[in-house]
Amino acid sequence: MIRLSVFYPSTEGATFDHDYYRNKHVPLCVKTWGLDGAEIDKGVDGPNVAAVHFKFESLDAVRPAMAAEGTAAVLADVPNYTSITPVLQTSEIVD
Amino acid sequence: MIRLSVFYPSTEGATFDHDYYRNKHVPLCVKTWGLDGAEIDKGVDGPNVAAVHFKFESLDAVRPAMAAEGTAAVLADVPNYTSITPVLQTSEIVD
Repeated sequence: MIRLSVFYPSTEGATFDHDYYRNKHVPLCVKTWGLDGAEIDKGVDGPNVAAVHFKFESLDAVRPAMAAEGTAAVLADVPNYTSITPVLQTSEIVD
Repeated sequence: MIRLSVFYPSTEGATFDHDYYRNKHVPLCVKTWGLDGAEIDKGVDGPNVAAVHFKFESLDAVRPAMAAEGTAAVLADVPNYTSITPVLQTSEIVD
């Protein structure tokens, strides 16, 4: 399994709308990429204000999702909830 | 639920023993803190070489774990698998 994590590092003066992220943006991602769901993190302590973790069956399943037509709309939605530049991490989930 | 994530940012010249991490270090964490398990990430692309995610029932359950006697041994074990300084993130998991 592959975990695609998106981190939002705490940034001076930046805003993050957790409600919009949870209710609009992440559901759009899940729908666009045909996933079962996602885990959303609301930062309590540490470098990130928020994060999300998506699971894909394989790396071969990530690439077409990122290239999907709807992904442009996902990216265009980012300014609707934050001024932070997201940081992407792709990882193999070890057993 | 609370997610305690530990990230190992890719660092010039640093080493990371994924086998030791998976087979020795994370099991030591799980045992020390009385958890059901953990999810280990092996970085494929992005800022982190590795990460781990532990779930706790509440913030009130994290603090005694961090203060537990065995946590000193967990921290002392870090140089056995990496020269990277771990970055901790505590987050509330938004359902």
